[in-house]
Amino acid sequence: MNLILFTPDDFSTASRDAATLAKNDARAAHIIGVLRRKPGDTFDAGLVNGPRGKGTLSGIASDGAVSLAFAWDKTEPPPLPPVTLVIGLPRPQTARKILNEATALGVSEMHFAATARGEPSYAQSTLWTTGEYRRHLEAGAAQAFCTRIPRIEFLNTLDETLASLARDRPSARRVALDNYESPASLGECLAAPPKSPAILALGSERGWTADERDRLRAAHFAFAHLGPRVLRLETAVVSAVTLALAHMGRM
Amino acid sequence: MNLILFTPDDFSTASRDAATLAKNDARAAHIIGVLRRKPGDTFDAGLVNGPRGKGTLSGIASDGAVSLAFAWDKTEPPPLPPVTLVIGLPRPQTARKILNEATALGVSEMHFAATARGEPSYAQSTLWTTGEYRRHLEAGAAQAFCTRIPRIEFLNTLDETLASLARDRPSARRVALDNYESPASLGECLAAPPKSPAILALGSERGWTADERDRLRAAHFAFAHLGPRVLRLETAVVSAVTLALAHMGRM
Repeated sequence: MNLILFTPDDFSTASRDAATLAKNDARAAHIIGVLRRKPGDTFDAGLVNGPRGKGTLSGIASDGAVSLAFAWDKTEPPPLPPVTLVIGLPRPQTARKILNEATALGVSEMHFAATARGEPSYAQSTLWTTGEYRRHLEAGAAQAFCTRIPRIEFLNTLDETLASLARDRPSARRVALDNYESPASLGECLAAPPKSPAILALGSERGWTADERDRLRAAHFAFAHLGPRVLRLETAVVSAVTLALAHMGRM
Repeated sequence: MNLILFTPDDFSTASRDAATLAKNDARAAHIIGVLRRKPGDTFDAGLVNGPRGKGTLSGIASDGAVSLAFAWDKTEPPPLPPVTLVIGLPRPQTARKILNEATALGVSEMHFAATARGEPSYAQSTLWTTGEYRRHLEAGAAQAFCTRIPRIEFLNTLDETLASLARDRPSARRVALDNYESPASLGECLAAPPKSPAILALGSERGWTADERDRLRAAHFAFAHLGPRVLRLETAVVSAVTLALAHMGRM
């Protein structure tokens, strides 16, 4: 954790200048056990989707509860890069890595969409049903020293996802990753101007069906590959986001 | 495992057309338990640094030993991309991910070099002392559906590594990743021609010292960053290799 993140729920007052964490809160354990802060010491803090600032360890109560005080920056971090991911709902262990790494790299939205070759049972994972996914987003943001958390959707079909993006992001450049039917690499595909916002679609581990390819084409997606080597989905996500950010001059 | 890899040690004859795996061999377990092959069924096989081909499950002995027969392709996969990584020796768990993912993406060499901010004890990890690292290389190659394994060095200092690269790869483009003292992003840095072989240097988790930056500059490394966000070392490796491969027209 390069940055310890806090949410409105952590504060008892609107001023957000003080908070108390229970002893078993992961952030309290990190401040005391990993950062080895003593009363009076400071650490880097952030308000989710708000400013960064400095936290100060004010004291440790007899029950182990940790009192903190905050001084927040006047300015907020810049918006997240205009990269939207559409990902065929993958195995939960793969989704955990993607949530963390894509957030650290910097994307605005991730849509995990039910696809024909995904397992419907993946949507019942505790990752999604308990809200655990938010923990991986916050870990990725803390790693990147950023307070901003991407918007996540995970209950829609591919058709519903494509329809919502047609409505919300009509002018973004659209590219679907596919190792089998793509005429050009993603690097070549993105090299053409304009350097507009991008929507990148990646199938689940077992890829797109012919029908899904047709739907993506109808939704104005170009197809691109990542070279002849077969990558794990989580590696392909990092590579694809990297190329999109680089073509926006951000990496 | 998209490809089951075999080495010369697996064969009792020079023709390499048959092999027997003990019941507890991970590949035997994969062929029987995951791929669910029965006698007579085939699977994708590869000879490390040699051709791909088809394996056939010939039979299963009463002690569980698995007999295999092979038909190897006449041609071999193309050479690995001319990307060399120099990486400050990281935590073993980080090194495992890098060994796997950089091999899957496609690099020719990885030099894990002792740096000032690395922990000397990392070199004593069983990852390196028992040869376990080879397993992660083979897993990355099998994922990529490729038989080629990068060359690995892990016993040298940064100075020794830079000296050996000056001798072996004098004309490669050299870029060191550094979030703090870099004038340009890696994407901008690599955009300038020529699209020559590349050497990419990444510090250990805690980065380069001022002295190491001087040594890298003296060894003709340019400095580049991966944007303002702080990435984990294993994510930065995937991003940096991706950008190098894309600028070679390979991704």
